[in-house]
Amino acid sequence: MYLLQVDFKMEGPFGEEMANSFQELARSINNEEGVIWKIWTENEETKESGGVYLFQTKESAEKYLTMHTARLTSFGIRDIRGKIFKVNEALSTINHAPIK
Amino acid sequence: MYLLQVDFKMEGPFGEEMANSFQELARSINNEEGVIWKIWTENEETKESGGVYLFQTKESAEKYLTMHTARLTSFGIRDIRGKIFKVNEALSTINHAPIK
Repeated sequence: MYLLQVDFKMEGPFGEEMANSFQELARSINNEEGVIWKIWTENEETKESGGVYLFQTKESAEKYLTMHTARLTSFGIRDIRGKIFKVNEALSTINHAPIK
Repeated sequence: MYLLQVDFKMEGPFGEEMANSFQELARSINNEEGVIWKIWTENEETKESGGVYLFQTKESAEKYLTMHTARLTSFGIRDIRGKIFKVNEALSTINHAPIK
């Protein structure tokens, strides 16, 4: 399993307004290849937002990151930081990680 | 709920050797205040490692990040990047996020 972590600077919206603005986008993510789940992240104080995703394969994580970076850029978002990691399943299992 | 994302440069160990080396540390993390789960992350190609954690409160995430940064530094690890985000629960729920 592979984890994709993305974060970037954003002026908003945050909170409930963010949830209302991106519901359709969120639903579309369920149809992307290899996505198991996504946690949507936000920090109104530092004006940052992002997401942490679990993927079935490295290839699907890479493909999504390329598409998502282009989409964020088209929204005017800059300073996008995306990283793909392998999940260490033995250690994560000790810490009750949601990877099964 | 709050998400803590930490990553840093590391020369290893990775994979099974990493799992063997940090089992005791992983077990101790279950006793830290407010930790719900941790996913252990690694990238042998880029020589990076880290973790993504779900916390019950912002305060417990901040306290853990301070302690963990000091611990990593004591291991000789530099370029530690730790970020705390609020979880957007409405959007994350659409994407099957493991936050309940």
